[in-house]
Formats: sequence, C-alpha cells, structure tokens
Amino acid sequence: MGRELSLIEAIADELRPTAVGGRVLRGLGDDAAVVRSRAVCVTSVDAMIEGVHFRLGEDWMTPAQIGGRALAAALSDLAAMGAEPGEAYLVLGLPTGFAEEQALQLVRGAHALANATGTAILGGDVVRANALTVSVTAVGWADSEDELVGRDGARVGDLVGVTGCLGGAGAGLAILEGQVQTRGRAEKRIGARGGTSVHAEARKRAALTRLRHPLPRLVEGRALAAGGARAMIDLSDGLGTDAGHIGRASGVHLEIDLAVLPLGDWVSEVAAELGVPAWQLAAGAGEDYELCVCLAPERRERAERALREAGGVGITWVGRVVAATASTPPGVTLLWDGQPRELAGFEHRW
Amino acid sequence: MGRELSLIEAIADELRPTAVGGRVLRGLGDDAAVVRSRAVCVTSVDAMIEGVHFRLGEDWMTPAQIGGRALAAALSDLAAMGAEPGEAYLVLGLPTGFAEEQALQLVRGAHALANATGTAILGGDVVRANALTVSVTAVGWADSEDELVGRDGARVGDLVGVTGCLGGAGAGLAILEGQVQTRGRAEKRIGARGGTSVHAEARKRAALTRLRHPLPRLVEGRALAAGGARAMIDLSDGLGTDAGHIGRASGVHLEIDLAVLPLGDWVSEVAAELGVPAWQLAAGAGEDYELCVCLAPERRERAERALREAGGVGITWVGRVVAATASTPPGVTLLWDGQPRELAGFEHRW
Repeated sequence: MGRELSLIEAIADELRPTAVGGRVLRGLGDDAAVVRSRAVCVTSVDAMIEGVHFRLGEDWMTPAQIGGRALAAALSDLAAMGAEPGEAYLVLGLPTGFAEEQALQLVRGAHALANATGTAILGGDVVRANALTVSVTAVGWADSEDELVGRDGARVGDLVGVTGCLGGAGAGLAILEGQVQTRGRAEKRIGARGGTSVHAEARKRAALTRLRHPLPRLVEGRALAAGGARAMIDLSDGLGTDAGHIGRASGVHLEIDLAVLPLGDWVSEVAAELGVPAWQLAAGAGEDYELCVCLAPERRERAERALREAGGVGITWVGRVVAATASTPPGVTLLWDGQPRELAGFEHRW
Repeated sequence: MGRELSLIEAIADELRPTAVGGRVLRGLGDDAAVVRSRAVCVTSVDAMIEGVHFRLGEDWMTPAQIGGRALAAALSDLAAMGAEPGEAYLVLGLPTGFAEEQALQLVRGAHALANATGTAILGGDVVRANALTVSVTAVGWADSEDELVGRDGARVGDLVGVTGCLGGAGAGLAILEGQVQTRGRAEKRIGARGGTSVHAEARKRAALTRLRHPLPRLVEGRALAAGGARAMIDLSDGLGTDAGHIGRASGVHLEIDLAVLPLGDWVSEVAAELGVPAWQLAAGAGEDYELCVCLAPERRERAERALREAGGVGITWVGRVVAATASTPPGVTLLWDGQPRELAGFEHRW
C-alpha cells in the first residue's frame, strides 16, 4: 500500500492545478469529490483492460495513449447523450513491473484529453492488478432532461446519420497486428496508383492516430441534440452492432446503406489487403467513437447547420428507420445494393 | 464479447425493477444514466481486487459478500462526507472460470446493500480480467455545501470520536487466515473463563460478519455532519492511518488514547492469540468502515443526540486535537498511558 499511497499523491500533484475553482468544491485528497450540480446528471462508466482492449508497448500503445483512450471512451458515452462533460474519476489497476512513471504518463494522457474537453479529473483509486486496467467514470451535466438524447427515440421515417469517418480504428488495428504489409506491398500499390510512399506513410499514420487518439464527439453530440436528434449512440462496437441497439431500444428497424459509409484514411487499402470489402471495417470494426444519430428528415438541415456552427465534424446520411416486422424485428439490417449483408466479425484480441 | 453482452443484460434484468422512478430519468440500457440532481454532487470511487482486498471461496467470501463489500467501501466514503447516497455504478473484471451465475450473485450482493441504503445501481461495465475485480463509483447528494464535512476542518481543542466498534474486521481476517485456533485453544480458553463454546462461536461469527458484511455508516455520517462535525473520515485503512489523514489535511495533530478504543466482538481474544495488544487490531487493522470525527467539545452532546435520534450506532470519544509542533507535525500520535506507541502493521495479502 505504501507504493500506492505515494503514487496517489504524485497523481494528485499532477492533476490538482487544473482541478480547482468554478463548480469544483472539493477535488482530490478528500473522501470524495464535491461539485456544484446542474439540473440533470449524466454518468457513464467504461473499463479497458490490457490484452482485451489494448496492448501496451512501443509498437502498440504508450501509457499516455491508453489513459487518453480510456477517458475518450467514457466521454464518448456522454457525447452520445448530448451532455456537457464535467468530471472524471480514474481507477488504475497496475501490474507488477508497471513503473510509477508509466502510471503518471497514463494519467497525463487522460489529463490532456480532460483539459481539451473541459473535464476535471477529481479522483480515483489505484490498486494492484495482474493486467493493466483503466476504469473511468465520466460525469456530465445538462440544464434539462429535454437537452438529452437516448437510444430509444428513433421513429419510422427518421434518417440515420454518422459523424466523421468510419473504419479508421479497425484499419489501424490491422496495421498494428501486422495483417497488412504497410511498408511493402500496400505502399507499392499506392505508389503504382500515383500516390507516393510519403503520402502512404501519412495516411497510415492517420489510421493509427485514429486508433490511438480517439476524440469523443462531445461538440457534435450537443449540436445534434440541439438540432433535433431523436436517438443517438456512440460507435464503440461498430455501426453494425451499435445501430442495432438503437433499433431494439426504439422498437424500430434501421436500414444502413453500406455503399455510402464515409471511410477513414487508409481504410480502403487495408480492407483490400485483408481481402474484405471496406464496409466490413467501417461497419464491423469498433472503436471509431463516432456518433450514430436518428432524426426526422425535416430536421436534417437544422442538424447540419448546428454541427457546422459548433465547429464539429460533418455528418453523412447512411440510412433510414423503417417499421419493425416479423421478418425484420427491432434492430438493424446492413444493405449493399439493396441486399442484406452480414458482418464478418472483427472481434479481436489485442 | 457475446458472453459479456448477455451477462450485462442479465445484470440489467436483475437491477432494473428497483432502478426506476423518482430522481432516476434514465437507468440501465442507455449510453449513460441520467438522474435529477440536488445542489451538490459527491462522488467516490473504490476498487477491490481478488488477492489484494479479498479472497474468493467458500471459506473466505462468497461473490455476494464481495459485491456488497465493494459497494459498502464506496458508500462509506459518502458517509464520511455526510452525503446522502444516490447512485452507484459497478465495473466487474471477471476472470475465466468465474461463472455468469457467480457474477449475478455478486451483483445481487451489491443490490441488497443498495436497496438497504436507498442507493440505485444504474450502470456499469463488464470486462475480462485475470483476477476478480470490482470497481464501484458511488454518487451522493446534498442540498448545500454546508451540509458536508471534509478531512480538513479539525481545529485545536476538538474531540476525536469513532462510531461503533473497532478491530472486528481485523479479527475476522485473522480467523480466516487461520492465525487463530478458533475451534481449539481459544474456545477452550473462553470456556475456561466461564463462557460456552456456543457463545464463542457466536462471537467468532460476529467478527466474520463484520469483515464480510461491512455497513457504511451513512446515517451516522449525516447525523454527525448535522451535529457539528468539523472533520470526518471513514476507517478503511485503520484508525492509526486514517486519523493521520485528518491531521495532515487540517494542519493539526490528533492524539488517540488507545486504552479507550471501543473493541468489537472477539477482538480481545484474537489479539491474545496473536500475541499483540487488542489496540493493535483496533487501530491498525483496517476495513471496519466506522467513522472518525472531530468536533468542538461544546458540540459533543448535540452530536450524540443527533446520532441517537437518527438511530445510528454510538460514538466513543477517543482523543483530542492539539497543535502541530516541530516534534509532533500534522498527523496522529497513538498513546497508551501517555506513551506513544507504534502500529505493528497489519498489512496483509488476502
């Protein structure tokens, strides 16, 4: 416990300077954190564990990336509700051999994203563990329940949209796993198509950045909520899975047109290397942390304008909401040229 | 992930019936939980891991006890602030071989304590882990900052009190670890003193219950806060350690009279078996989850009355707050007959 106590103090020293004032009444160093509330409190919990959700190491992810990513995943849930981020609490499970300095780097990685998003890290716990574990509780706020959007509000006739681009994290993972010969065949092929090796390297790096530094779509979530979103979810497990959650929670069926999915950098190339259609990465691989939203067609322009005015990423309309039937129960169907397609399943072990 | 999704649904089915209505706007099954706030939000995070904070097994702890205990530890932090419990979020790290039914029992154990304390379990996460891990975020509320008590308000002249009895959890642990011959020598000795084996067995069970079913002193914490407490902390690491936190946070020195510590059932007998003074278990072993409070002597009667009226356990006055000096810096001194004593250190591996 001695080590843990000194580490907790070092972490507190790291975080304290930005965790004071404003709504924060008591931060680190007491039995609990105390903050001034707004009317409605939104809370999400997300845990990541080495070997399941990430792999630690120079070639994989640094402690700082792991810390940022764990916070991003928890904040992404707040984004999907349209909530404003407030506070975060970290529980670190540290294996033997994980140095105190590495733990501090992990906290710094989370802290950087916290600062960038206006989130105060106000507490946590440090325990021993057999595998590195990062568990994050993110607390967000709204002034009224009406500002928030759940998964259950999609209605027949709604449009289905996704923010940003998809498949980048899946492509990045395939690169890290060595399934793709980025320095060999793929780059040459890109070169043959008129690209350059430098260009290819930059796009590859973009896919890796996507995987290692996911950005929760907080601004976009609030803009879409204000713009009339009826249902929203963040894409942590992949569009094919997560859109199904909206369908089941709302009692409707979502039809997604795979041909129009917005692809991230390097996704087509990686998919070609893997011998799968690009939509498999875009709809099947998770961890892009974009948002999937349903809204009435007449709200479309308002939502697009709200996104633009908020300075968020763009939105692509990828499907529509239809009535659930006996043959299409509440959930989702992925369509290519009007024909249903199945995901190959990109379940992976890190 | 398939297993995790079905387990999460089974857990949600378990918890949903009591997690609706009142302040809860959205419970399980969305990206985040949504609750109506009160003015001030109090949040605490606590993680427990097999082999460090508990051991799983028939002779040690059942999954239900582990779940209840993890929630108790997090709620105990809210108690130490004088906050009213609101919501809890559980992250379960489940090792291979830990059956779904065991995980449900763990959740049921937490749920039982949640119901008993008016806490709604509104979310969580389930991940694979190498060792069973339970991480709990507890959120509590108050209508004003003034209702809450931190660690930093102790003043010179204050009395130091502890709720309930101490040492029971430490005694229970010694029994579980087999350091004490409860069925052999100790019982015979008790019998020789005029007790009975049945009586001894009952007291032993009380010590084990204390360890396995800690009760967060929520009612007591609120009563003491209302009764004028200036500083408060819960005894998770033991009075000798936790009182030091108050001393350092408040810039004062606490003097604890070891001779008057209230001892739990079986503590004297176990200490005799271990060959240590009983105060070593009472001040050194942690996990009793009682409260340590500092308040002005003129508030003593008011605090005692508030405790009685709230139906809480009693309080014992065990020390006083003096000025920190060069030789007694902010912290705590344990005294026996006016002489400082050191804790033997009951750091244990489960």
